[in-house]
Amino acid sequence: MILINGESKGHIDITDRGFQYGDGLFETLEVIDGHIVFLQRHLERLHSGCLRLHIPFPDVQLIGFEARQLCRSLSAKRAVLKIIVTRGSGGRGYRQPDVIQATRALSLHPYPDYPASYSKQGIVARFCTTRLGLNPALAGIKHLNRLEQVMARSEWTGAAIQEGLMLDINDYVIEGTMTNLFYIKNNSLYTAILSQAGVDGIIRNIIIALSVEQGLPVVEHVFTRDQLLSADEVFVCNSIIGIWPIKQIEATHFSVGPITQAIQIQLNEFTSRDIDNEQ
Amino acid sequence: MILINGESKGHIDITDRGFQYGDGLFETLEVIDGHIVFLQRHLERLHSGCLRLHIPFPDVQLIGFEARQLCRSLSAKRAVLKIIVTRGSGGRGYRQPDVIQATRALSLHPYPDYPASYSKQGIVARFCTTRLGLNPALAGIKHLNRLEQVMARSEWTGAAIQEGLMLDINDYVIEGTMTNLFYIKNNSLYTAILSQAGVDGIIRNIIIALSVEQGLPVVEHVFTRDQLLSADEVFVCNSIIGIWPIKQIEATHFSVGPITQAIQIQLNEFTSRDIDNEQ
Repeated sequence: MILINGESKGHIDITDRGFQYGDGLFETLEVIDGHIVFLQRHLERLHSGCLRLHIPFPDVQLIGFEARQLCRSLSAKRAVLKIIVTRGSGGRGYRQPDVIQATRALSLHPYPDYPASYSKQGIVARFCTTRLGLNPALAGIKHLNRLEQVMARSEWTGAAIQEGLMLDINDYVIEGTMTNLFYIKNNSLYTAILSQAGVDGIIRNIIIALSVEQGLPVVEHVFTRDQLLSADEVFVCNSIIGIWPIKQIEATHFSVGPITQAIQIQLNEFTSRDIDNEQ
Repeated sequence: MILINGESKGHIDITDRGFQYGDGLFETLEVIDGHIVFLQRHLERLHSGCLRLHIPFPDVQLIGFEARQLCRSLSAKRAVLKIIVTRGSGGRGYRQPDVIQATRALSLHPYPDYPASYSKQGIVARFCTTRLGLNPALAGIKHLNRLEQVMARSEWTGAAIQEGLMLDINDYVIEGTMTNLFYIKNNSLYTAILSQAGVDGIIRNIIIALSVEQGLPVVEHVFTRDQLLSADEVFVCNSIIGIWPIKQIEATHFSVGPITQAIQIQLNEFTSRDIDNEQ
């Protein structure tokens, strides 16, 4: 099920700058029982990303309407909604056209069949060789230039490892290929600063807000692989998986600790309240 | 005129990883009187880019055949041929599919109506605020993650400025938004090292080879804005424009010097020999 600029079709013009240059942004949202989780937050991030890339944002109301329209036809209990916004077609080479007509592409996908054990007993992660480049102008934005993540994700196959952790070119730990990363040490919560690289995740920000509210000290800082490996607890998060504790990074083992479990509960409650109230 | 995987059509599936992640590469080639200039070199670069990104390269012969097929129908004296190769569709998220079926998209475009004065009297350039991020894994490759160039090119409008020069995040000068950059100082030719950022241009490499052949010392190094501004001559190059001398960068003026002119003549002769012999 796909809607491109409101039309039910599955293809885009090859002149679209999304295809030509990765000139656009995307959001990946969870759909539960036809309800789109944190829709407003995703639309707000999409909007702020468009502002940073100077893409005139398509009507928020319209995207919200189309997203709900797509999900109405859904029979599965859970699904993934992807929203892509590009700078549309036109312009000469990298130069954008004088009048930008953004493209919006909404599509529904099956919810990935992750085992429930990933949330409860945790996952196994590895460090990727592929590094994240540094660029303040693009850092934080969920844009369509994702070759680094594709290359990192291609470093391993098979089901023994669930996520790859990415370092920047200075060897500081930033995030997972598809997740943000947190660790707990001496009852404080730590995560990477995303001013140079990384995606500013919706769930990441909710976790930070909930933790601060609960009186848990939260530190955004620069940290190394060794600092991460000496953590008490480690977890990754995103909008589809929620929180996955990490039970092992290469040769280092972690237990699924009480703080991670408490944050999981808080996140689940917060998500349920959104389902009850947001739309 | 467009050929996608050999079919005459103008659209691609939105599941194509070129659209989803910028997961692919491209080449931009000049077509003169139906002859594709430096076709073999472009195909070789495309091939080596595919190797670096682990995209199984579509048959070189086939792309060459399709490129010539497209150009046969051409009536204009000059045109631009663009070849895009992506990792195709499929996979889950960033993870590539087990069997990759690359997409190839060839399209013909009008030759840009640049005034002849750009090659002879030179152009005006500016320094862009948008920086090039650093990433050895992607540096040199003409991949589809081009948001930095799009953002840099959006910094100015109007015809008074023809090219923007881009610095990396350490403020070293790398290249133009759509060109490679050279400067001449005390009878030596200088250009940026492209191991961290930038596109390893076909014309750049031809210029280096021709200059070495002519006994002109060529230095690939790291240099600042001030070093560039103290140059004797400056020029930019790419496969479509050839060589454009730079006559002005912001407040600093340059003359179109004898070494730039000599390299222009050598490049033209070399290009003519390619037209006579290559295909």
